[in-house]
Amino acid sequence: MRVAILGAYQTKFGELWDLSLGDLIARSIEGVLRDSGIGKKQLQIGFFGNKLSSEVTGQNHVAALATEILGIPIPFIRVEAACASGGVAVSQAYMAIASGQYETALVVGAEKMTDLNPSKISDALMGAASEQERQAGLSFVGLYALMARKYLSDFEAKEEDLAQVSVKNHHHASLNPKAQFPFPISLQQVMESAPVAEPLKILDCSPITDGAAALVLTSEKFARRYRKRKIYIAGSSLMAETLSLGKRKSLTEIRTTRLAAKKAFSQAAMEPKDISLAEVHDCFSIAEILALEDLGFYKKGEGFIAERNGEVKLDGKRPINLSGGLKACGHPVGATGVKQIVEIYNQLLGRGGQRQAKKVRTALSHNVGGTGGTAVVHILKR
Amino acid sequence: MRVAILGAYQTKFGELWDLSLGDLIARSIEGVLRDSGIGKKQLQIGFFGNKLSSEVTGQNHVAALATEILGIPIPFIRVEAACASGGVAVSQAYMAIASGQYETALVVGAEKMTDLNPSKISDALMGAASEQERQAGLSFVGLYALMARKYLSDFEAKEEDLAQVSVKNHHHASLNPKAQFPFPISLQQVMESAPVAEPLKILDCSPITDGAAALVLTSEKFARRYRKRKIYIAGSSLMAETLSLGKRKSLTEIRTTRLAAKKAFSQAAMEPKDISLAEVHDCFSIAEILALEDLGFYKKGEGFIAERNGEVKLDGKRPINLSGGLKACGHPVGATGVKQIVEIYNQLLGRGGQRQAKKVRTALSHNVGGTGGTAVVHILKR
Repeated sequence: MRVAILGAYQTKFGELWDLSLGDLIARSIEGVLRDSGIGKKQLQIGFFGNKLSSEVTGQNHVAALATEILGIPIPFIRVEAACASGGVAVSQAYMAIASGQYETALVVGAEKMTDLNPSKISDALMGAASEQERQAGLSFVGLYALMARKYLSDFEAKEEDLAQVSVKNHHHASLNPKAQFPFPISLQQVMESAPVAEPLKILDCSPITDGAAALVLTSEKFARRYRKRKIYIAGSSLMAETLSLGKRKSLTEIRTTRLAAKKAFSQAAMEPKDISLAEVHDCFSIAEILALEDLGFYKKGEGFIAERNGEVKLDGKRPINLSGGLKACGHPVGATGVKQIVEIYNQLLGRGGQRQAKKVRTALSHNVGGTGGTAVVHILKR
Repeated sequence: MRVAILGAYQTKFGELWDLSLGDLIARSIEGVLRDSGIGKKQLQIGFFGNKLSSEVTGQNHVAALATEILGIPIPFIRVEAACASGGVAVSQAYMAIASGQYETALVVGAEKMTDLNPSKISDALMGAASEQERQAGLSFVGLYALMARKYLSDFEAKEEDLAQVSVKNHHHASLNPKAQFPFPISLQQVMESAPVAEPLKILDCSPITDGAAALVLTSEKFARRYRKRKIYIAGSSLMAETLSLGKRKSLTEIRTTRLAAKKAFSQAAMEPKDISLAEVHDCFSIAEILALEDLGFYKKGEGFIAERNGEVKLDGKRPINLSGGLKACGHPVGATGVKQIVEIYNQLLGRGGQRQAKKVRTALSHNVGGTGGTAVVHILKR
């Protein structure tokens, strides 16, 4: 059973102090129904991606909250896989439709992060790492700094190559009115920004963000009744493995990404070279470079060259993170994996506005939980 | 695609102070693989039910933890729906197999609750209710007390009828070595126990529990190679609706249960009268009586009569909660929905030990999140 995307919506990402988690859910559902051209009574099942609501506001059971907001009884399931919660929600909705058991599925990813003070939210985010890592006093930027340091030591890359990721993603975000940071930054600004965990500086890091994104997935048959131009999910794949960075064989490879990508490409009968553009999980600048390699776009140790020579920019060979990525569009953790697919869906439909890429026929999204304990890859095509 | 259960396992339930969440996961995976007669490399996907790990130990991303413990990379997805997390995990595993995309699925439900002090765990549990309910200072026993009071006021039931639920479930638990409270209690003991939220007394309430349960689900074809006597999932249904009790039309009906049951019965081509026995969600004594009615076993306002005349006991017409239920077997919230199916699976296989019911051909499980924001119903048959 082929699975189509009927509509997509993203709220503004940022410090949305006047909006609650419930408000974000309500706006994203309203937006995606409007974009899909269907009514809520046509929704048969829902999936909700969220990581932090219990830590931030004490609210668990958020799929029931979403159903209360939706206003009709349907099966609605919350999934949680740290920063991959959104991608996992999409993968489960894909399965629901592909199984033939449902014709339509709503996916909502939403996160409210700015209601906690920064040190508490850092603690809460460390829930995505292992107990040993927490007890050792590590932070997520510390964990990714270990990966970055090893990468810089093993390969010819320099700190400027990491910084280039943020410069590119801010440039893309400057063309995205929904982005948290819709303005450019210079290489010098990144290089001179405060070190957080060397070699990573504050401008190598994605921010704390409030926001939501939503999709409606349907069967091919259902989509035919509503849209002339259809976008299909050609591959949907999820892989989990070691929660702890210390239990991996390599610090410069995220194996769940490799395995998930391999499976998604096989399902889509495609190869990395067939992908027009991608949204990848750049929680820290090093993460984008590792993703480029682990997804198969570049050989191990060569991803940074693409950042250096610009082929991952809007006007390059294969643009990466046209939304601005996690770095500059923002990273409301449970919403990120959904937003990535909203972005590539819009690109495939030619709705990319000022940041529309040319000749987009296929697109990939890549969402990671923690340091790679979970990875989710989706491939879309026209 | 028909879905079979290949194996089932439950750890001892109780105050397991020497076991961590990871230990519980490890034991339940080891136990279910042994019971299934397959190796871990034959597992293709996993689903994990857990509510409280982030509140209790700060650990989120628990499906990646489970995968690390399993020791091989597979897709592994955590779902959370408060006390229905386990049932939701089974429903998603059912969907994965029924879709034809996977041949085998592991389900683990695990919860570690006794590492928090009682008042903090009560606060954490209130994450399953609405923000308004939390702000009003309500507790879960308070919410269910509202339902109990209304029931006693609308129908002919007495407090002794509620108490009878606990007496029966403790009797069943006295025959279950895995139960947290494997001993009988008397009607007088319940009636004289301390009031918590009137009319509910401490012995009307399920306890705080550590424990885990696991299942292996497979396609019919796969199961044929491993087991002579197969148990099938004939119906699997999940429904979500209003998170808040105050937004419901009735205090004496859980509509998600009614809707989920209706769908599961329709899928199984059965009626309530066809069910030999059931495990239902007795988080508080009143909840079992509501479940008996909302599942269609008895008319609204008549469930208590079955408790009074004993037809829901081991030797009665349709035994309910032979495991001891949440009340006496214990209620490790994320494990409960999985354990219910472990119990009815064992009953269908004649492995019920001292509490084995006679002539079991079909069985039902019923798992609720919060005050009914989510309900999950499964129907098994030989």
